[in-house]
Amino acid sequence: MTTQAVIAIHGGAGTILRSALSIEAESAYHAALEGILEAGQRILADGGSALDAVTEAVRLLEDCPLFNAGHGAVFTAAGTHELDASVMDGATLEAGAVCCVTRVKNPVLAARRVLDKSEHVLFTGEGAEAFAAAQGLEFVDPAYFHTEARHRQWLNARGVQGTMLDHDAASMDARDEGPNEPIDPDKKFGTVGAVARDAHGHVAAATSTGGITNKQPGRVGDAPLIGAGCYANDATCAVSTTGTGEMFMRMLAAYDVSARMEYRGATLEQAAAEVVMERLPRIEGRGGLIAVDAKGNVTLPFNTEGMYRGFARVGDTPVTAIYR
Amino acid sequence: MTTQAVIAIHGGAGTILRSALSIEAESAYHAALEGILEAGQRILADGGSALDAVTEAVRLLEDCPLFNAGHGAVFTAAGTHELDASVMDGATLEAGAVCCVTRVKNPVLAARRVLDKSEHVLFTGEGAEAFAAAQGLEFVDPAYFHTEARHRQWLNARGVQGTMLDHDAASMDARDEGPNEPIDPDKKFGTVGAVARDAHGHVAAATSTGGITNKQPGRVGDAPLIGAGCYANDATCAVSTTGTGEMFMRMLAAYDVSARMEYRGATLEQAAAEVVMERLPRIEGRGGLIAVDAKGNVTLPFNTEGMYRGFARVGDTPVTAIYR
Repeated sequence: MTTQAVIAIHGGAGTILRSALSIEAESAYHAALEGILEAGQRILADGGSALDAVTEAVRLLEDCPLFNAGHGAVFTAAGTHELDASVMDGATLEAGAVCCVTRVKNPVLAARRVLDKSEHVLFTGEGAEAFAAAQGLEFVDPAYFHTEARHRQWLNARGVQGTMLDHDAASMDARDEGPNEPIDPDKKFGTVGAVARDAHGHVAAATSTGGITNKQPGRVGDAPLIGAGCYANDATCAVSTTGTGEMFMRMLAAYDVSARMEYRGATLEQAAAEVVMERLPRIEGRGGLIAVDAKGNVTLPFNTEGMYRGFARVGDTPVTAIYR
Repeated sequence: MTTQAVIAIHGGAGTILRSALSIEAESAYHAALEGILEAGQRILADGGSALDAVTEAVRLLEDCPLFNAGHGAVFTAAGTHELDASVMDGATLEAGAVCCVTRVKNPVLAARRVLDKSEHVLFTGEGAEAFAAAQGLEFVDPAYFHTEARHRQWLNARGVQGTMLDHDAASMDARDEGPNEPIDPDKKFGTVGAVARDAHGHVAAATSTGGITNKQPGRVGDAPLIGAGCYANDATCAVSTTGTGEMFMRMLAAYDVSARMEYRGATLEQAAAEVVMERLPRIEGRGGLIAVDAKGNVTLPFNTEGMYRGFARVGDTPVTAIYR
């Protein structure tokens, strides 16, 4: 059974309280995750590559306004949207990523074109948009990324900005101990991602995000960084992360799962659990990750209250979940 | 002796042919490296931190027109300069970086301010410059980065651009075998960096670059990426890399040295040699790195013809070298 093709996705982690999410909202998340898993399943069932399956799943997550990526991305402090995405192919170790794009409809497709068509791995800002335009990708007016729900979150964040930044600074300080969670961390943990293992035994990963609500323009998190928010290697695993981005960058969270498997012989589940439950908490890193290995094992650990997530083996019914 | 404070620096790796470098030019490189090592030594001898020593050494490397960083940075395809830098503190695992800045005199000082003053790790483009301006850092007219030597290199690169891009694409293709070196790879391997171990047993690393001659605007290499071009952890080592940036990104070259020490018990020298001589060549990765560990061991491996490099223990005469 572990040789089946499989796809897993996430839509962000954080303090997702049952009391804060209506039955209707909960159903909408489950339905969205399930539909996207089914789209990935179809690609894998048809013999498609893990790389194509994760690219398509993340494209659909970007298009869904429930998640913080593409349409539905959060606002920066300047009231704009800056989007980041990455993709990696475990078969070739090739990778592509873009950061700080503002008009590319699907950042993950731009990342994929970087992987397919460029000798480079990462493009930022206007250079990334020039590359995407030369590749004929679809551009949108920045207003496309605007949704009412994210706009309200942004206005709320601005209302408490002074306090928020102060408390943020404190909670980011590894020397500061004890609980210190003045704001809803949900606003900060929005990322989407997918990992897959195809029928040929190859793995791939993709990640995309709008970043942090009210972030300073130009801030780049872990999502577009190979080894931090995204990593894939047929010899070990494929990983997509979501959480307090800076901590995942400092810990090379995605690659660390792979390194623990390769250098210590850890299983996928052990390696992922060590990174999420032991390594990241050392520097107050909060969030989770999804990972598959070349044998088709899947693990979805997180150290927060919840993580929008799911996985689907070809031929099986998709499984979706939100809380622990 | 291994408990001494020590600093190591590099000024890029590549095909540095003895025949191509005059005696005068060679002496100029040795003198520049020696002077910068002495400045780092003084900080360490006075009980200064490894973090301060690497920041200052890279600031001086940026100011020296011989090296591709700061004043003396290469030109982009648009005839501009886009600069990247990063710094990491092994004592706290805190990190700071900027990419694609065009007017900050010393990108490494902007990276250091991100580490010291921001909850974030990486800023790009105008957002990075806005942060640097708010921090009171020195700005220059972009013409400051212009040097005659780099301008000539750029004109040469543009003259063969079509060919160069074709051959580049081929040589970047891991499936393409055999030697394929149509252009002087020196133009592509320019990066500067420093690593140090201070009297308190802490390590730190810093890296800075102007990137690749005639690069597409917006291309970001390994230099500003934690784990790719720069990494520091008191528990293992501090690393700064230089080479074909994309391969170092895909291999997480800097962090991989640390992972091999932590998870497999490799020595600093073994781990660094494995990454440079075995791991990177698998995907045609060329270049080198400098690394120190908390015991004060130093290693400077490279898989190219040469690497501008040197190290200095407090109390000893600096050692500098260019060729194998």
